[in-house]
Amino acid sequence: MAPAAPSHPHAGDPVFDLHVGGKMHISPTVSLDGPEDLSMAYTPGVARVCEAIAADPSMSQHYTWVPNTVAVVSDGTAVLGLGDIGPAAAMPVMEGKAVLFKQFGGVDAVPLCLATTDTEEIIATVVRLAPSFGGINLEDISAPRCFEIEARLKELLDILVFHDDQHGTAVVVLAALENALRLTGRTPATTRVVIGGAGAAGVAVTKILLEAGIGDVAVADRQGVLTSARGELSPVKRALAETTADLTGRSGSLADVLVGADVFIGVSGGTVPEEHVATMAPESIIFGLANPTPEVHPEVALRHARVVATGRSDFPNQINNVLAFPGIFRGAFDAHATAITEGMKLAAADALAGLVGDALAPDLVIPSPFDPRVGPAVAAAVAQAARRDGVARR
Amino acid sequence: MAPAAPSHPHAGDPVFDLHVGGKMHISPTVSLDGPEDLSMAYTPGVARVCEAIAADPSMSQHYTWVPNTVAVVSDGTAVLGLGDIGPAAAMPVMEGKAVLFKQFGGVDAVPLCLATTDTEEIIATVVRLAPSFGGINLEDISAPRCFEIEARLKELLDILVFHDDQHGTAVVVLAALENALRLTGRTPATTRVVIGGAGAAGVAVTKILLEAGIGDVAVADRQGVLTSARGELSPVKRALAETTADLTGRSGSLADVLVGADVFIGVSGGTVPEEHVATMAPESIIFGLANPTPEVHPEVALRHARVVATGRSDFPNQINNVLAFPGIFRGAFDAHATAITEGMKLAAADALAGLVGDALAPDLVIPSPFDPRVGPAVAAAVAQAARRDGVARR
Repeated sequence: MAPAAPSHPHAGDPVFDLHVGGKMHISPTVSLDGPEDLSMAYTPGVARVCEAIAADPSMSQHYTWVPNTVAVVSDGTAVLGLGDIGPAAAMPVMEGKAVLFKQFGGVDAVPLCLATTDTEEIIATVVRLAPSFGGINLEDISAPRCFEIEARLKELLDILVFHDDQHGTAVVVLAALENALRLTGRTPATTRVVIGGAGAAGVAVTKILLEAGIGDVAVADRQGVLTSARGELSPVKRALAETTADLTGRSGSLADVLVGADVFIGVSGGTVPEEHVATMAPESIIFGLANPTPEVHPEVALRHARVVATGRSDFPNQINNVLAFPGIFRGAFDAHATAITEGMKLAAADALAGLVGDALAPDLVIPSPFDPRVGPAVAAAVAQAARRDGVARR
Repeated sequence: MAPAAPSHPHAGDPVFDLHVGGKMHISPTVSLDGPEDLSMAYTPGVARVCEAIAADPSMSQHYTWVPNTVAVVSDGTAVLGLGDIGPAAAMPVMEGKAVLFKQFGGVDAVPLCLATTDTEEIIATVVRLAPSFGGINLEDISAPRCFEIEARLKELLDILVFHDDQHGTAVVVLAALENALRLTGRTPATTRVVIGGAGAAGVAVTKILLEAGIGDVAVADRQGVLTSARGELSPVKRALAETTADLTGRSGSLADVLVGADVFIGVSGGTVPEEHVATMAPESIIFGLANPTPEVHPEVALRHARVVATGRSDFPNQINNVLAFPGIFRGAFDAHATAITEGMKLAAADALAGLVGDALAPDLVIPSPFDPRVGPAVAAAVAQAARRDGVARR
């Protein structure tokens, strides 16, 4: 039996036509064509499978869809460029994410949009759902709640917890930056990076760059460079200041720190005027990731920089999270990992960067999302890193 | 990309082989083969769909999978005949339920096993999940918590809420009973019914039989017939007593009320000795629904009764919930119903009973779950009843 035939208010609009009925469904992998089938897949046969799991919970890794299934959890507060549109309106994005999980990682993903924006309620809800999933992908939850939710869930759960807006972005940025540094003959330790934006992506990009050995990072929000001397900082921003500009003594405005900087990474949506871009070091690197309007338009950026990347598909070097999260979960699931470690994220970035190989060029520092090597390469590197980091169960 | 190749501890056992990797997966209904596809199904195109829903929440009925999707929610406390095996071990049953939803009703169902047995926590969790689903099917939650959880969720939510262990069972029992009464020339108002068991199924069967006009119902638990004179009754059992034996003045043991009874419906698992069965009225009707051991074995029952039904597939007249819940949800979804009313349940039972038609015989009072007419007939009757009851939005 199928749902009733669709008719809809925006018929004829190709985007709405494509969304009719949603973008996914459930497919049984067993067919129940007679009493014999039913007695194996359902009662009474299924009782033996339940008993096996009750006796040894690790058996659920074999006999349920759980170990290959992710909950894509959002509260609808920070959806794309749209902001706080609520859980119902966020659903098409979460379904899209689920489609990407499946197509690019073979991961089953269930979109769950929650009718609460309370940090404790979101945490409690996800903890109660955990037996049904092999991983939790947090999505489009506004800062700073997203940081506490992720940190607490990682403490409380022994399944995978990942906030793609942070870590997916960070992995792809690092991959592109590694190649851009190679192209311009820089080494991480002597590279000076300025990050514009201290939200979810800014925090995670900063952390991964420091882990990757970048020697000088300054992060600016709309009030200027984060330093502990600024009294008003939130705990998250204070921690960021302590690991970045506090160590180098840099301070002032975004314009001040851009002078002579090797790299600018915009993750804020705040436009940077061309006269400030022009003060950067020769052969500079500019990633303007805001969508649809990059912090520095690529045409402007290319007048001053050697390598330019954006979040858009209509310019070269698209920083697209789909390069990372499907392969990261695929690899973590294949290794039956209990966590996604910093080592696994760095391995994912290295694998992504490595795929560019000899094709490396200013307009090709990151592979295309449709390069079929991406998912398998990221997954293999992540699974290997999981074993190296001691979080793999297989 | 696919999950790693399976190997498992019970290889060679057909039931376990069938369960490897679980019994379901997610299938995208759109394919993302290039940037153009991605820009329609995901950013930037999807933003317009999100905005349309944010402006008019009813648009999610058209452009997401929500209106055709059910959460199968359990806490794993009353699973099959296994009892309280916990959420992880309950998952194979809930996946099986999801497969049945899809195959027999075209309904997408997501198994959600919760890591809590607290009534308030279960209610709060389901309320927060509601924006992601068109309906909630409660499953295998032990009594009496299941009653409060269902009642409160029906109050709090404007999506479908159904507890299959109660209402699915009740609908199929009523359908079979309607035909058994027809076969034995009885009318509901003068029929005397004894129900053995006052758990979830007993409560719901009693209610639907009263709604269907059965004139004399007595419910017995292990302490005997429920009457208000018994001081120790729970609120649920007291309410049951007030609508049954309190009205007829019947009391005593199960054996006492079986004398001269027209119908016995066992939903308790407590075996009834043959000497008590022998005291029932001529041409009696016996449904022994406990699995795998009916309250009265069919061979014993047939020595005294005209019509015998069980929950088992290896005897005639199987009372199987799959005859009801897929079609009930299909019909309610097709009508965009905001609730599953008593009228919709009665209509489902009538439709099921009607399918037997002229083939009516002592060993055929209920259709086979594999009769392809079942789902469509139940769905059509339920959708029509939804419109009649004023809960349909379409």
